[in-house]
Amino acid sequence: MTADSLAWLLLCRTVRFGDTDAAGVMHFHQLLRWCHEAYEESLERFGVSAAEVFPTPGHVPAVALPIVHCSADFLAPLACGDPLAIQLEPRRLDPGSFEVLYSFRSSERDVARGLTRHLAICADSRQRCPLPEPINRWLEASSLGQGIQPL
Amino acid sequence: MTADSLAWLLLCRTVRFGDTDAAGVMHFHQLLRWCHEAYEESLERFGVSAAEVFPTPGHVPAVALPIVHCSADFLAPLACGDPLAIQLEPRRLDPGSFEVLYSFRSSERDVARGLTRHLAICADSRQRCPLPEPINRWLEASSLGQGIQPL
Amino acid sequence: MTADSLAWLLLCRTVRFGDTDAAGVMHFHQLLRWCHEAYEESLERFGVSAAEVFPTPGHVPAVALPIVHCSADFLAPLACGDPLAIQLEPRRLDPGSFEVLYSFRSSERDVARGLTRHLAICADSRQRCPLPEPINRWLEASSLGQGIQPL
Amino acid sequence: MTADSLAWLLLCRTVRFGDTDAAGVMHFHQLLRWCHEAYEESLERFGVSAAEVFPTPGHVPAVALPIVHCSADFLAPLACGDPLAIQLEPRRLDPGSFEVLYSFRSSERDVARGLTRHLAICADSRQRCPLPEPINRWLEASSLGQGIQPL
Repeated sequence: MTADSLAWLLLCRTVRFGDTDAAGVMHFHQLLRWCHEAYEESLERFGVSAAEVFPTPGHVPAVALPIVHCSADFLAPLACGDPLAIQLEPRRLDPGSFEVLYSFRSSERDVARGLTRHLAICADSRQRCPLPEPINRWLEASSLGQGIQPL
Repeated sequence: MTADSLAWLLLCRTVRFGDTDAAGVMHFHQLLRWCHEAYEESLERFGVSAAEVFPTPGHVPAVALPIVHCSADFLAPLACGDPLAIQLEPRRLDPGSFEVLYSFRSSERDVARGLTRHLAICADSRQRCPLPEPINRWLEASSLGQGIQPL
Repeated sequence: MTADSLAWLLLCRTVRFGDTDAAGVMHFHQLLRWCHEAYEESLERFGVSAAEVFPTPGHVPAVALPIVHCSADFLAPLACGDPLAIQLEPRRLDPGSFEVLYSFRSSERDVARGLTRHLAICADSRQRCPLPEPINRWLEASSLGQGIQPL
Repeated sequence: MTADSLAWLLLCRTVRFGDTDAAGVMHFHQLLRWCHEAYEESLERFGVSAAEVFPTPGHVPAVALPIVHCSADFLAPLACGDPLAIQLEPRRLDPGSFEVLYSFRSSERDVARGLTRHLAICADSRQRCPLPEPINRWLEASSLGQGIQPL
């Protein structure tokens, strides 16, 4: 089994007009938005509801997962209407943090890469704590087919 | 046949974390972004490619369709993870302009409405001109099931 | 005294590259973001701190002011680097709601207008309630020079 | 003379409500937008007009400066209303590329860092080329007070 076979890790979207700028192509920081939306969609498809991980009115999860670092590499310009395939590679870094690598392809070419690094903290104390159980399930299932993962 | 039966006029999306603000619910102007993305997705599903309507590197369509007016009504708060059904009602206003009404429903409730009004102009002269043919096809096909439409 | 003389009602900003799209000009929904940021800056300049009106970590104001309606009219294309003067006209609609009209000028021309309508609700019960005192102060001071205002 | 004394390299902004998410604090990718807006404002204050560097209707500069890499580190949560001081450190990497490091401080604390890396390409051929003259002037003037800079 390979990562490619895990349906919740391969997502699609299309470059929209509002994602572009006056140079005619995708404006760089939109990619980070796409990354986070892909992360949310991946959790959803895997079976983790948004309310288990993200604050909603009347319910704040005990553990927050703020992003402490992100990066992106832009390999080719992206035009309005370009279809994108997004491959996610989630990886646990230690018991209280993980990162997700996002590879964007369009028309058989690598066009961009993104990375988000997330830290588990107690929503109340803001002290570091272990990752919540739904995230651990997703990380473990996602690591199948990716070779050995760090604990 | 009713508008509901036209597949390119009924779209879905999910409220994402980045769409919310510190009040815990969707930040108002994101709705207008959703409207435009729904308009683009509708054209795509109907069979109009993005490059026929929107500028892409190396190709500027002869007719531009700038938005001259937009509005939105917010009927209920929307939380991260909420699924949305978006019904589009495109309508020709005169030979050189059209508008699209967007109705957002979530869990069987009307939650928001949006409107965008578009004017056809010559990309070069910026003078008013007739709507481009692909938009006319989409408007005509969309009007089936919506009763009589103004020419 | 005229509205023009009230310093917290006349603000400036510049169109930025990320505000544009592949048509080379400001993408429509950015205007609504500018409106809300102008509303926030106006309150700040008048002397109302953000924490009195908007939720911040550990402090949720008793009264929330969700936007129930917004609209915008686009009169001229706006390019990257264009300077904007934004004139605000806040207006109380009834004891529990108000709206703000935003007029955008660039190089002595009217280029766009925006409108946001806000409703006061109890943050807890989500029932309608009177406007909070800092907003009333700002509305009253802003109405000087605008002629008679509805109570 | 130190970098701090170069007025076009020290900018201010305030966290706005629409920059936050339902966790109550700034949503991560907004920081990259702030970085690019700070880069544009810095050029403007230094005396480089937007039209010399960014495409505007009817004028495309001969050299484009796409971002090929960006990153951000988030050191502390940022709430609506928080004032930010942004220190820019532009640095030429080679004759055809440069990067800008952005340090964000609020209330005497380091709260975030950003980085954008830009490559000069011919707008027509999309081949690499030397940096445009206005960018070189800005880089050279900015390097005074920063110690020795790579050519």
